Amino acid sequence: MTPTAAERRREGRARRTRRKNAPESSEVMRAHRAIPYVDIASNEAVERIEAQSDRLLEEVGIEYRDDARALAIWRESGADVEGTRVRMDARTVRELCAQAPSEFVQHARNPDRSVHIGGPSAVFAPVYGPPFVRCLDKGRRYGTIDDFQRLVRLTHALASLHHSGGVTCEPCDLPVNKRHLDMVHAHLTLSDKPFLGSITAMERAEDSIEMARIAFGAKRMESDCTIMGNVNVNSPLVFDRVASEAIRAYCGANQGIVIVPFVLGGAMGPVTTAAAVAQALAEAMSGVAFSQLVRPGAPVVLGNFLSSMSLRSGAPTFGMPEAALSNYLIGQLARRLGLPFRSGGSLTASKLCDAQAAYESADSMNATAMAGANFVLHAAGWLEAGLVTGYEKLVLDADRLAALHVLLAGVSTDDNALGVHAYEDVEPGSHFLGSAHTMANYESAYFDSALSDSESFESWTEGGAKDATVRANERWKALLEAHEPPPLDPAIVEALDDFVARKKASCADAWH
Amino acid sequence: MTPTAAERRREGRARRTRRKNAPESSEVMRAHRAIPYVDIASNEAVERIEAQSDRLLEEVGIEYRDDARALAIWRESGADVEGTRVRMDARTVRELCAQAPSEFVQHARNPDRSVHIGGPSAVFAPVYGPPFVRCLDKGRRYGTIDDFQRLVRLTHALASLHHSGGVTCEPCDLPVNKRHLDMVHAHLTLSDKPFLGSITAMERAEDSIEMARIAFGAKRMESDCTIMGNVNVNSPLVFDRVASEAIRAYCGANQGIVIVPFVLGGAMGPVTTAAAVAQALAEAMSGVAFSQLVRPGAPVVLGNFLSSMSLRSGAPTFGMPEAALSNYLIGQLARRLGLPFRSGGSLTASKLCDAQAAYESADSMNATAMAGANFVLHAAGWLEAGLVTGYEKLVLDADRLAALHVLLAGVSTDDNALGVHAYEDVEPGSHFLGSAHTMANYESAYFDSALSDSESFESWTEGGAKDATVRANERWKALLEAHEPPPLDPAIVEALDDFVARKKASCADAWH
Repeated sequence: MTPTAAERRREGRARRTRRKNAPESSEVMRAHRAIPYVDIASNEAVERIEAQSDRLLEEVGIEYRDDARALAIWRESGADVEGTRVRMDARTVRELCAQAPSEFVQHARNPDRSVHIGGPSAVFAPVYGPPFVRCLDKGRRYGTIDDFQRLVRLTHALASLHHSGGVTCEPCDLPVNKRHLDMVHAHLTLSDKPFLGSITAMERAEDSIEMARIAFGAKRMESDCTIMGNVNVNSPLVFDRVASEAIRAYCGANQGIVIVPFVLGGAMGPVTTAAAVAQALAEAMSGVAFSQLVRPGAPVVLGNFLSSMSLRSGAPTFGMPEAALSNYLIGQLARRLGLPFRSGGSLTASKLCDAQAAYESADSMNATAMAGANFVLHAAGWLEAGLVTGYEKLVLDADRLAALHVLLAGVSTDDNALGVHAYEDVEPGSHFLGSAHTMANYESAYFDSALSDSESFESWTEGGAKDATVRANERWKALLEAHEPPPLDPAIVEALDDFVARKKASCADAWH
Repeated sequence: MTPTAAERRREGRARRTRRKNAPESSEVMRAHRAIPYVDIASNEAVERIEAQSDRLLEEVGIEYRDDARALAIWRESGADVEGTRVRMDARTVRELCAQAPSEFVQHARNPDRSVHIGGPSAVFAPVYGPPFVRCLDKGRRYGTIDDFQRLVRLTHALASLHHSGGVTCEPCDLPVNKRHLDMVHAHLTLSDKPFLGSITAMERAEDSIEMARIAFGAKRMESDCTIMGNVNVNSPLVFDRVASEAIRAYCGANQGIVIVPFVLGGAMGPVTTAAAVAQALAEAMSGVAFSQLVRPGAPVVLGNFLSSMSLRSGAPTFGMPEAALSNYLIGQLARRLGLPFRSGGSLTASKLCDAQAAYESADSMNATAMAGANFVLHAAGWLEAGLVTGYEKLVLDADRLAALHVLLAGVSTDDNALGVHAYEDVEPGSHFLGSAHTMANYESAYFDSALSDSESFESWTEGGAKDATVRANERWKALLEAHEPPPLDPAIVEALDDFVARKKASCADAWH
């Protein structure tokens, strides 16, 4: 039934309210792809890449180092284990990959914030891992737990970030062996979005999972994915103990894992794009297969992080076209495997939140979104090749992520969207300002950017001639000022506090 | 036959040389699409858009104002002409569109610079039309003929710009009725890339064509497209005399025309994306059909310029997702018509060359390139909703356009690209630095940005901690410093000088 004009106006207002309030934490955005997938290579080309991956799995093999249990698991599966080298029948690996769910839900403590990972969904999370932070006021400096907590609260406040991420910056003022406790505590108490736990040691992974258990209850953990870990492959072709233990810890507890080949082409992988993608595919498939040996059906994401390098200095480069192509390729390959995939992000090598940062981040994130990435770590806040979390960058990227929601949603062509009746009160040479069709659709028609200035030169000058980074600085401060941590059962807060205190007291501080 | 390693290295070196020299004017870049097209809407959806376009052509009609000859041409074709309103049988319009070439060459006076318009080619041209210019040294000011000449020389020096464009800035220090003479003179003498002539009055269009005739010879003009005009539709649904006369002038001389509906949604067209695209399609198809009535087979480009608006102020916005979607849609529709299309560009509402400008330009240009646009005006240099040509913006955009060449070229999956032999000298856990595969491919492996800084924070700080805009400022100055206008037969220069002098002397200056 076609809605009446009044109904359309009401729905328009409602949509506009949702849109305009989008940056506030009371709102939930969903990135749902309604446009077709972009397959950038022919079937023949992707089959050639798959064949190369299969050769790597079968002939070269993947090493699982310093983890006897991992090797035992592989041996029991029938793989050829020679020292730490594991050679696997590619067909068996594919059969194991097929046991993993093609889509799953990571539950948040607020059910409205639970995210669907896989299929047409895209889940955006902030940058992961930088030891430094940068803001306009204080410049570049080591991250602290104060920064970390602020970044978790900002991420909570930004509606286009669906996920709280993990190490949004390293809290370098806390001991290395205890900071995971404060990070998970912050994710659970300052936000109600889903998050990533620690993976840097077996005990830290287990602590993270235990804290999720306190928040969600032991019973939920048996049936639901409430926490995930993100592990890097030590490319080329090596799973370190840290990675295989984290897979065992998370999947063993029926929780999720993201397995990420980290390939800087020409260093940790071949210098040509198809070869780097083939290696990354082999590595990720091996990890996914391993996760299914640990627990069949465990939720897992096929990861990928490919970067190019400067031909002049060998420094890693970001936002470059080879990485964009690899995003598209890995998406195509992941869909053939029926697995959710992680790729890309708003990546840049720039030191500042300048035009370079924005061009590179946009080109990178565009290819990420168009490629169909299901889980996007580093979707906001990344600066300086991942060494720095930028406060202004976080909110600027988040604004563009909100725009990408509209792109992914595609175009309606119903009679209203087509304007079939739009010319009844508009003549050629006239205009649509105030016409019936405009009034019925105006409020929800266009993406409303929080940070782009579209005013005239004169208005902008009167407003202080602020550039985008200055406006972003004002915005993150306003968001923080307005932010209220979401409510949480005091008994759970107490139990978390108690767990953290007990763990901190149980051993000496370690600083590296 | 598979090339030997030595042949691959040689080719690698040659490619690297081409790449590294890309920013110099002695080199020619070609944007050739090898990746598949992206069809963002279902067949059913595009058929609904086409049906709406057909309704506009047949029921509402298009006005051709103040041009009796245009109305006579339509009347002779069998269209229903009522006053200035022309209602056309949509099937006839499509048949006329089918007479236009699906691809054609715009010849440059240097044959190496001739561009292929249509099919898998993308042709990038600088911004068109701004009355103002901006650079870091002097800020924002009215454009002059000095600026214009500098911008033509910079465009000539930038290898990722295939085309010299038209009004790269308005030379506001010259009389309105004579500045076209100096602009065409500059395009013909300071550059050897193809260019656009004037369209603002019949006589100026004819002057432009006459100057091309001087440079190319009358005989060439009969067989070859050597100059094009770019005309805007006065949307909604009106061709002003300026537009229809320009079509008659250019196509009548067998030269090319780009026909561009200029739709700011909610003002010159409906506020919903599908409706705005349907209107733009009807307008452009009407113009293309008219060009074929003027001269069957005349080279023509189906244009499109769609922008959204700020819901708060009504100001036009750029780089927004609705415009990105319209780029994809118009590409899909143009391919169904078999016509080359113009769309998009590196568009922004930002006043400065800041992060906003870069995010918006990249998102806009990404959708432009991925949509398969064949001719892209405003591909570089656009600022402030098209009111300002930015010197730094021009070179920054051009650097990202160079990157897009690599994206469009796609991925090779031959044995070398797949790295089939790459693991013969690289063990798991080792690295590819200096490996045989890396050495054979390194020099051509990655896009080499002229303006992105990928160095460490420490190196960058030692180098003066320059942001991208400061580096761009240095770059355009260095390019101008090094630029030599390409050689031109002195007899032609003299004839052009003479023509310009004669025309200038023939009437009084007009300033508006």
